[in-house]
Amino acid sequence: MTARRTASRAGTAAALNHARARRPATLGLLGAMMSHPTVSAAPAHRADLRRCAEWLAGRLRGMGLDAVAVRPGRVAPVVTAEWLHRPGAPVLLIYGHYDVQPAGPRDAWATDPFRAVVDGRYVYGRGASDDKGQLTAHLAAVEAWLTAGGGPPLNLRLVLDGEEEIGSPTLLHGLRDRGRVPEYLCADLVVVSDTRMRDERTPVLVSGLRGSLAARLEVTGPAVELHAGAFGGAVAEPARVLSELVASLHDPDGLVAVPGFYDDVRPPTAAERGQLARDGPSAGELLAPTGVATGHGEPGYSPFERTTIRPAVVVTGLSTSGTARSAIPARAAAGLSVRLVPGQRPAAVARSLRAHLAERTPRTVRARLVVLAGCPPYTLAPRSAAVDAVSRACARGFGRTPVLLPSGGSIPFVSAYADMCGTEVLLLGFGLPDDGIHAANERFLLPNLYRGTEACVELYAELGRSCETRAPRARTHRAPVTR
Amino acid sequence: MTARRTASRAGTAAALNHARARRPATLGLLGAMMSHPTVSAAPAHRADLRRCAEWLAGRLRGMGLDAVAVRPGRVAPVVTAEWLHRPGAPVLLIYGHYDVQPAGPRDAWATDPFRAVVDGRYVYGRGASDDKGQLTAHLAAVEAWLTAGGGPPLNLRLVLDGEEEIGSPTLLHGLRDRGRVPEYLCADLVVVSDTRMRDERTPVLVSGLRGSLAARLEVTGPAVELHAGAFGGAVAEPARVLSELVASLHDPDGLVAVPGFYDDVRPPTAAERGQLARDGPSAGELLAPTGVATGHGEPGYSPFERTTIRPAVVVTGLSTSGTARSAIPARAAAGLSVRLVPGQRPAAVARSLRAHLAERTPRTVRARLVVLAGCPPYTLAPRSAAVDAVSRACARGFGRTPVLLPSGGSIPFVSAYADMCGTEVLLLGFGLPDDGIHAANERFLLPNLYRGTEACVELYAELGRSCETRAPRARTHRAPVTR
Repeated sequence: MTARRTASRAGTAAALNHARARRPATLGLLGAMMSHPTVSAAPAHRADLRRCAEWLAGRLRGMGLDAVAVRPGRVAPVVTAEWLHRPGAPVLLIYGHYDVQPAGPRDAWATDPFRAVVDGRYVYGRGASDDKGQLTAHLAAVEAWLTAGGGPPLNLRLVLDGEEEIGSPTLLHGLRDRGRVPEYLCADLVVVSDTRMRDERTPVLVSGLRGSLAARLEVTGPAVELHAGAFGGAVAEPARVLSELVASLHDPDGLVAVPGFYDDVRPPTAAERGQLARDGPSAGELLAPTGVATGHGEPGYSPFERTTIRPAVVVTGLSTSGTARSAIPARAAAGLSVRLVPGQRPAAVARSLRAHLAERTPRTVRARLVVLAGCPPYTLAPRSAAVDAVSRACARGFGRTPVLLPSGGSIPFVSAYADMCGTEVLLLGFGLPDDGIHAANERFLLPNLYRGTEACVELYAELGRSCETRAPRARTHRAPVTR
Repeated sequence: MTARRTASRAGTAAALNHARARRPATLGLLGAMMSHPTVSAAPAHRADLRRCAEWLAGRLRGMGLDAVAVRPGRVAPVVTAEWLHRPGAPVLLIYGHYDVQPAGPRDAWATDPFRAVVDGRYVYGRGASDDKGQLTAHLAAVEAWLTAGGGPPLNLRLVLDGEEEIGSPTLLHGLRDRGRVPEYLCADLVVVSDTRMRDERTPVLVSGLRGSLAARLEVTGPAVELHAGAFGGAVAEPARVLSELVASLHDPDGLVAVPGFYDDVRPPTAAERGQLARDGPSAGELLAPTGVATGHGEPGYSPFERTTIRPAVVVTGLSTSGTARSAIPARAAAGLSVRLVPGQRPAAVARSLRAHLAERTPRTVRARLVVLAGCPPYTLAPRSAAVDAVSRACARGFGRTPVLLPSGGSIPFVSAYADMCGTEVLLLGFGLPDDGIHAANERFLLPNLYRGTEACVELYAELGRSCETRAPRARTHRAPVTR
């Protein structure tokens, strides 16, 4: 153990020096990744996703990783790799995603969304922060350990998802439907960098993720678009009924009005709320990137609580069929993103929503709720050797220990993996709250790319030192950790 | 007078014979007109509108009409022509429009929307019924009188609008802003064929049109699209607020809930309601083209009453900014088409709507109502020489006298012209309720193209015989009828 620790310290220093010297190459790697328009939600981009996966696999092979595979997925491949040359040391699974959200209207962007444009301290472009920049920090750290550090101080598996932004259907299917965790996912610990820091100086170790239920509410009425003059006033209009159904989801004061919605929510403790008030962002800090001065949400909770430990029903879009200005659309649809907190499960919430909507839908139209994706919430066990390892790695990489804070987002693979295997997932992100992920002009702070790389180098060393080997604790099965 | 009447009868017979012999050419004229994709709402089609206008002008010149002009418009030209060789006879203004609604999604159409496809008794394509088919009947009738009838038995002006589907901005501006009616619009009577028959055998002379207020309700909130996980629950969502505002426009029982909305509505008399119940379509007939079995609307009124003599607030579309599945859109908008009845004025209704919306908009978002177009309702004086002339023309062309029925639609030029000049407008349409105007697979019954042409031939003769010359009765000015 002492020999390994000494070797690891020398290796860490060498890997850090290598990573620092290679910063331009790290930025180049990110730029190359961002040039692939890997929009998983757009069928037109499937070839781009495949090309990016093949390109990533080539880079992983070039670094010296083993068993590099481009595994076909429903929409995009999953790229996997491993390095299992430390018998007895834990297996760390590094999860990241190379797919991105759609860029949205081109004219909202100041630069080409699929070109990495450096301006001042930032790199701009779709995926800069979510998640290509954060993933690049891990790839650069792995490369540094393999090239200069004498090999990572623990065993590694890499899983690069091409479907995170559409709910990771291939990985979730792989986890849930085969009866056993596939070997490329077997690990003792998982690390994911796909979240945000408290501010530019303060890392966050995420104490929990909200779950998510993505659904589309569709209302259909007339068989065809109808002339608004000839028929206006005599038929139930899908767009109007949809508006009424969407409006019925909340009370005037901001509470979700769906019966049963809050039934399973575990109320936060006073201690939990105190810690959030102390360590979390203020209302002003949280709302700054939104451009709105005054928040709106569940009464009795702060904006940070509303976005982390409280559930929400969010309207993500409205659309109608047809394009005629004076026609009654035959169909209308709303996108709903329900964010869930500990105690809530997607299926139960979908049932509550369906019952609520069915009761309020007039007989003269049809309404249905199509569930597109769902994942349960995730909670980290706050005291463990792994959490201490993250603290030490951040103290070195960022000069500050991380705060433990919940995130309002959802990472379906993380929730499903933890839900199934009970494995700890370390969510240590390098993004910032004002990166504009999912929006136009997404960006990533370049110093965080480099500090993040160094924190990853340190993290692998700390985890190699501190964590014992454990097999994944699956609920219904046991899978081998190494072959 | 007797000499002219006799000449006219001989001319009518010759013109009818000519029109019957030229049926294939009439269909060919319609097909050529439909091949121009004259979508006035789409900026990409401006050149198509210009091309169609020039082509129409060529056809009008070829028929022998005088003073044919392609007058530049805001979006599309107005094509005008005249034939003023019957001193002392009335001037009839024939108004029609060559622009069309957008085709909407191509895959909803069984055939190319901009190609006239004949199948069985119908011709299919955008504009077949609204208004190219009905306009063609007039052009064929004018051509028959000019070529075979010895010239029309009254004076004619033709006004072919390229902007009817977007509210006729050029013509309305010409009517309202110059202080005098432009000469090409001066007439004693107006005829418009842009409405529907009671059924295949029964013509309708429209006793009134609803007015219209087209508006867009826009709600803006955050400065950018926001991640639904990171911000969901903490900000007022434009899409949700828009849904709530749209839902607030109606009571649960279907009444418009905007204070003051019904204040100026003149309640229908018992006699009026009795005539509508007797001559108008039944609920089943009216709803048949919609594909819905049960109507929905203002309590206490039949579907036909709801679409004609009662006002309505119709939701014509919903949309949101951004395309990301799990983002909070920064902007949401609804299209509203308000249909007005006698007593109501667009400006007063816009004021009521704005006051209602302002009261219900939370401070955390901005909402505004953008008025796109408006026109007052139109009512025909039910007993006049012109109405009798229409009756006789229909008895010959269709074998049946027309019923007097209100239409739920709006024709901005008609309403504005009648509102300004007090001139009678004869709305005698050749469409059918199930033509699918403004929808996919729009069609027009071919026998009605030919019967309509013959009815127009007869109508010009009847009007030439029965109507005295009158100058337009403008509210604020007098304009010369002939030069």
